[in-house]
Amino acid sequence: MRTSVLSDWLAQRLDRGNGQPIYRQLHRLLQQAILSRELPAGSKVPSSRLLAQELGIGRNTVTQVYEQLVLEGYVSSATGRGTFVADSAPDEIVGAPDAEASSTPDAPNAADAREPGVLASGRTPASSSSPSPHRATRALSTRGARLIAGAGVSKRQWGAFMPGVPDVTKFPARVWSRLHNKYWRRLRPDLLTYAPGGGLAALRHALADYLRTSRSVRCTPEQIIVTTGIHQSVDLAVRLLSDPGDVIWTEDPCYWGVRSVLHVSGLQSRPIAVDDEGIAPSPDDLAQPPKLMLVTPSHQYPLGMVMSLARRRMLLEYARQHQCWIIEDDYDSEFRYGSRPLASLQGLDTSGQVIYVGSFGKTLFPGLRIGYLVVPEALAESFATASAELYREGQLLQQAMLAEFIAEGHFTSHIRRMRTLYGQRRQTLLDAASQRYGDALPAVGGDAGLHLVMQLPDGSDDRRVAAAALERNIVVRPLSGYYAQPSLAPSGLLIGYACVPDEEIAPAFNTLADAIDATLPQFA
Amino acid sequence: MRTSVLSDWLAQRLDRGNGQPIYRQLHRLLQQAILSRELPAGSKVPSSRLLAQELGIGRNTVTQVYEQLVLEGYVSSATGRGTFVADSAPDEIVGAPDAEASSTPDAPNAADAREPGVLASGRTPASSSSPSPHRATRALSTRGARLIAGAGVSKRQWGAFMPGVPDVTKFPARVWSRLHNKYWRRLRPDLLTYAPGGGLAALRHALADYLRTSRSVRCTPEQIIVTTGIHQSVDLAVRLLSDPGDVIWTEDPCYWGVRSVLHVSGLQSRPIAVDDEGIAPSPDDLAQPPKLMLVTPSHQYPLGMVMSLARRRMLLEYARQHQCWIIEDDYDSEFRYGSRPLASLQGLDTSGQVIYVGSFGKTLFPGLRIGYLVVPEALAESFATASAELYREGQLLQQAMLAEFIAEGHFTSHIRRMRTLYGQRRQTLLDAASQRYGDALPAVGGDAGLHLVMQLPDGSDDRRVAAAALERNIVVRPLSGYYAQPSLAPSGLLIGYACVPDEEIAPAFNTLADAIDATLPQFA
Repeated sequence: MRTSVLSDWLAQRLDRGNGQPIYRQLHRLLQQAILSRELPAGSKVPSSRLLAQELGIGRNTVTQVYEQLVLEGYVSSATGRGTFVADSAPDEIVGAPDAEASSTPDAPNAADAREPGVLASGRTPASSSSPSPHRATRALSTRGARLIAGAGVSKRQWGAFMPGVPDVTKFPARVWSRLHNKYWRRLRPDLLTYAPGGGLAALRHALADYLRTSRSVRCTPEQIIVTTGIHQSVDLAVRLLSDPGDVIWTEDPCYWGVRSVLHVSGLQSRPIAVDDEGIAPSPDDLAQPPKLMLVTPSHQYPLGMVMSLARRRMLLEYARQHQCWIIEDDYDSEFRYGSRPLASLQGLDTSGQVIYVGSFGKTLFPGLRIGYLVVPEALAESFATASAELYREGQLLQQAMLAEFIAEGHFTSHIRRMRTLYGQRRQTLLDAASQRYGDALPAVGGDAGLHLVMQLPDGSDDRRVAAAALERNIVVRPLSGYYAQPSLAPSGLLIGYACVPDEEIAPAFNTLADAIDATLPQFA
Repeated sequence: MRTSVLSDWLAQRLDRGNGQPIYRQLHRLLQQAILSRELPAGSKVPSSRLLAQELGIGRNTVTQVYEQLVLEGYVSSATGRGTFVADSAPDEIVGAPDAEASSTPDAPNAADAREPGVLASGRTPASSSSPSPHRATRALSTRGARLIAGAGVSKRQWGAFMPGVPDVTKFPARVWSRLHNKYWRRLRPDLLTYAPGGGLAALRHALADYLRTSRSVRCTPEQIIVTTGIHQSVDLAVRLLSDPGDVIWTEDPCYWGVRSVLHVSGLQSRPIAVDDEGIAPSPDDLAQPPKLMLVTPSHQYPLGMVMSLARRRMLLEYARQHQCWIIEDDYDSEFRYGSRPLASLQGLDTSGQVIYVGSFGKTLFPGLRIGYLVVPEALAESFATASAELYREGQLLQQAMLAEFIAEGHFTSHIRRMRTLYGQRRQTLLDAASQRYGDALPAVGGDAGLHLVMQLPDGSDDRRVAAAALERNIVVRPLSGYYAQPSLAPSGLLIGYACVPDEEIAPAFNTLADAIDATLPQFA
């Protein structure tokens, strides 16, 4: 009789027309019946032959479902005696303190469901036994909540005037595809498995050569640690070289993303003002040496000034005396218009204090996710081990493609082409701005990079302007958001020109200008 | 006269035969002379015309070098008066406390070099002016040193018997290349820039479908967060949901890599013993509810048992009562031989406590670096934002390829093929072991996964055996290293069979057996 009740219940629910295999449906239904106690613990389930017959399905299907349920612990089978529902009630929780949450009235409590189920007693089964989800509104951790509250990432990552994004449509896709096909044709297993610490040797060699000649970085290939970009590079350096509570100097203003990485690792960042020569620590700042400092000597981000030689030497000397680490973020130094790129701070370092950080995100395309650290020789092995241990990286085939791309000269010639292109776009943007505003809204940002900063009148709300621009489908970022105290910060807009086609720059700028005019009364 | 001294000095050092452009050589030499004070601050440099003439090089070259030096702050030019060496001495450090390191006798001190250089006084210049590097042996941070000391990563990542690595040579490279070429032909800029939080929508949809049907995971595409793998998934969950000092339960034994990720984020891990039914917290454990727990219900890593249904329900109920999060690492659940894969813990969760973690590393190839989190609905937006903010991911084109790979059915058929293949290899390995040792060295590990665990006699040193095997070019991992206290742990070897070609398994096992016999006296 029990058999026929269960068979009826199952037969009502099995649906040959819904596209789900009968095996899966039967498996789910039996799980459901057991979890909801409609098939109570200890009850015997019909033999596979009988159930198959009553449901009009193959016996093999039932056998397989039973075997699966045995494996999953829903039923157990005793040879010669049949198959029984296992005691699937939760293990008794012994030794737990009184639960704060156990009195929550709307929380479903599994123990309440211990009464025998309807299938055992012959009653009509309830139509659905899956409990409605209980969504606890538990808080994020303190660091998690802070991270979310301070998040600066945009929803949009492409189009006028997204700062910091290169023109990916100009990337030599054919060369890249050729390399891809070459490596996938003669498949090498060692390129498809996990990466050795520090990355692929061929890429580290190619990078050392490139950095030596183009960025005056002094290093051996072993000092190069391949990462997925600036974020991972900074994360690794910070976790290996500092402990929670340690102080790091950051430039004020600075890149929002790195600030988040620092905070979530427990660092206290001390914002240091910048002047025309770069980071400018006050006597008060200097009196409290930090554990680390994070600087952008080639092209201050986002304002664009170059750190003077005197300032560079001061920083190096100070860091040497006080045993602090300098992280040099050399993020878009390849793009300097009208002059050659400036040499790195790392190249001036004679005492192994500088951690140099770079990436291919601006020179090739952001989605590639290949960046690198150059660390002092004494730290090279620790960094390589830690990167493998913490991130368990791979993507070696892509690293091999990139190494060949560099060695064949495509990398430098692509940079050369892009430098010309971005220089022109920058000029087009400046022309459009001056045509509309004359000298009323001056641009800063040095003759370099992928963006410039247009200053807005003191006291104007750059976030409102950026929001008004976004309504018109133009992405700009408010300068104040890059400062530690946005409410006291100068007002301005970061305008990225690199990824905007030439002919769209002037029209897009005029749309932006409409947003400015609509927001700031003095231009209305 | 000064001009000719400088010209002589430069002429001696410029080398037309060394392949370095004259521009770069001249630039370096002048930088060197200025940094070493051989060209002292305030001294005038010869006009570009004169210097070009005296060196017999193009005037344009000299002009460009001078312009570069101006930009870099080494020299400054005053119109009509000529070009002068800037004061490149370090900015005076005002307000800094007494430096502990300033008395270090071997530290080069820039201030000592302030005397006028030889080029100004007419003396013969010193042969080399770059100071020898001072390598400070500064310690890593506390967390950094702990990370390095506990690192478990191997140098080798491929070959017999590397655990946890699938057979990447069987990956359908042609299909993959076809997809690659398709996406690179019709280049979409939005696939080459930064990823939106959570990853590409198409992949999140494909994954939600796959996980629903194959892993009984209940989720919408929005609950899926694409990551680079288990490490990043756990990192993200831990940083968003816990603070330094919080306790996490880990299984004992467990995967070494995740343990490192936890420690470096400041968590205290409490190792919980496992029994035949999976993680088995004692009354003492239960009396102190953790913030998080990290479990492998489908296939305990590395021992292989399946968590019983009773244990699953106990954990869920306990977590609900005590408001703790369960991270379910479902790392290689697709490979279960002789039975279907087991359903996930997440599918039983009715109160939004489970964070489900998976990856394509075992099913496709490790180097791909695509993994995912499935988070409770209430956390989905925070996780998406945080992943974009912390990691600034990309690789969208690869995500698009993978989404299509799944949608076209290649993913499930590849898993099916590999399941058969690995099942055979597992049997070949078991046969080889039993032929050599009979029942003396039993294997555990369930009928699933990419490795099994061969138990060694109590008290034998599995690290010595693994080292002896490595000398014979065989990679195995000592089981004791997966335990919180290796010295008290059972002895055994993790043997990965998935990436070893069929015909190599028996010979490689015999080589391993030679290492066992040579190390353990009872087998000699």
